[in-house]
Amino acid sequence: MKNEIEIPVEWGDTDPATIVFYPNYFRWFDIGTRHLLDAAGLPYKKLISEFGLLGLPLVEANGKFLNPIRFGDTVRLVSFVSSWQRMTVQIGHRAEVNGKCCGEGLETRVLAKQPTPGTIKAVPPPERILQALPVYAQTE
Amino acid sequence: MKNEIEIPVEWGDTDPATIVFYPNYFRWFDIGTRHLLDAAGLPYKKLISEFGLLGLPLVEANGKFLNPIRFGDTVRLVSFVSSWQRMTVQIGHRAEVNGKCCGEGLETRVLAKQPTPGTIKAVPPPERILQALPVYAQTE
Amino acid sequence: MKNEIEIPVEWGDTDPATIVFYPNYFRWFDIGTRHLLDAAGLPYKKLISEFGLLGLPLVEANGKFLNPIRFGDTVRLVSFVSSWQRMTVQIGHRAEVNGKCCGEGLETRVLAKQPTPGTIKAVPPPERILQALPVYAQTE
Amino acid sequence: MKNEIEIPVEWGDTDPATIVFYPNYFRWFDIGTRHLLDAAGLPYKKLISEFGLLGLPLVEANGKFLNPIRFGDTVRLVSFVSSWQRMTVQIGHRAEVNGKCCGEGLETRVLAKQPTPGTIKAVPPPERILQALPVYAQTE
Repeated sequence: MKNEIEIPVEWGDTDPATIVFYPNYFRWFDIGTRHLLDAAGLPYKKLISEFGLLGLPLVEANGKFLNPIRFGDTVRLVSFVSSWQRMTVQIGHRAEVNGKCCGEGLETRVLAKQPTPGTIKAVPPPERILQALPVYAQTE
Repeated sequence: MKNEIEIPVEWGDTDPATIVFYPNYFRWFDIGTRHLLDAAGLPYKKLISEFGLLGLPLVEANGKFLNPIRFGDTVRLVSFVSSWQRMTVQIGHRAEVNGKCCGEGLETRVLAKQPTPGTIKAVPPPERILQALPVYAQTE
Repeated sequence: MKNEIEIPVEWGDTDPATIVFYPNYFRWFDIGTRHLLDAAGLPYKKLISEFGLLGLPLVEANGKFLNPIRFGDTVRLVSFVSSWQRMTVQIGHRAEVNGKCCGEGLETRVLAKQPTPGTIKAVPPPERILQALPVYAQTE
Repeated sequence: MKNEIEIPVEWGDTDPATIVFYPNYFRWFDIGTRHLLDAAGLPYKKLISEFGLLGLPLVEANGKFLNPIRFGDTVRLVSFVSSWQRMTVQIGHRAEVNGKCCGEGLETRVLAKQPTPGTIKAVPPPERILQALPVYAQTE
């Protein structure tokens, strides 16, 4: 399973060098994860209300920026689970413009509960979440 | 050589889980690099006017998020060159709150020229830049 | 003439009070103006290359926030020219969620040229731009 | 009573026209309000814990952009209460660079409670808040 969304690149996303200011790639990756979860029938609201989670906070994020992206481009963002570990999930992202891969990302997230206000605790993924979000086997 | 700045964490930096929205760490890393360059006597303006550079675009960025950062915290961001390669520089960042390391980052940047409008080309670092920005040897 | 776009409200757009952090409304208004210009056949690229403009910098912006917008909402943003003055254009925006108006905006922009680097000068709108972007008469 | 903070203008705050992307002014105004409240001994945390408020959501915001602000500038932001109404407070902001006023803002905010989850209700300001945040008489 993977999910694809289109993101228009706006004026405010770009910098004086006329290319995308790089933290925006991570903003897009976060958006990609949200829409992947929605597509899997696991929107944040459900994660909170049904699974008692606080969210999926990041423990690590990596981005590779292969080709510049500019104002007016439309990014096709492909997002998928690349692996599950005992307490974490890795979500991969690929940002394409006109079929060319311009950036790649990997987010490592935990399923977090808040046992007491102000504390955050990682928990193993429930079986229903594992089934709804199988690892996507990248060929190519 | 390393550089330290203080960044107040603002309301708009945080999300409904009341912790910092993670792309902001990368925004801070970019700010840390800017102030490191300033401290080294190599502000962007000089890189552009004296060295003919377009900037220092990213080819890769990694972040590790160790402890949540919240609204009202003050981040002490330590930035330093962690290595020079033939065409790239790696800049390390450590984000501390009250002496506790809450996040770490590593940016890989190229020194970019724009031979013709719309193209970007990496160039080796001039000797003067290498001397002004020596690798910081982390002990501990 | 008016233009409508849909903007999904993302996790990072919202704050610890679980509502949209208000500067994002202005980010959306800026996006709405861009897409209004595109729809009128006057994308920024054309304004720059054909009309010699630097862009349409803001001289004033107003926003009214009538109902909270939350993560997961989809904003339907309606954008239109509300008036032309001698040197400025006013662009109106209406942000609706499920048919309910949640926010309104008014941007006053100038057509800017850059006679010499570092300076900005407002110029009267060319006839072709006035014709492509007539005032939208709001009824209702 | 007024409060002043300094805000360095960063690379990511600016756009391809090399000036500040205008929604950032409102981000700064929000920051100015936060620091004004801190200076008045009324940080958000206290507003929440002692006064049972959800925050100070915006009902209206206006900005005037008088002179361009660029990367590398340091903004001196002056923030103050410009008026109290029955249910709202108006907070004024002035953004100066090197003593020159480059932008002005006016935020209209309500003191919000959340009687039931998902609802927001404006309440009149408690006497202690009125006393801690008197109107600042601008004499130019």
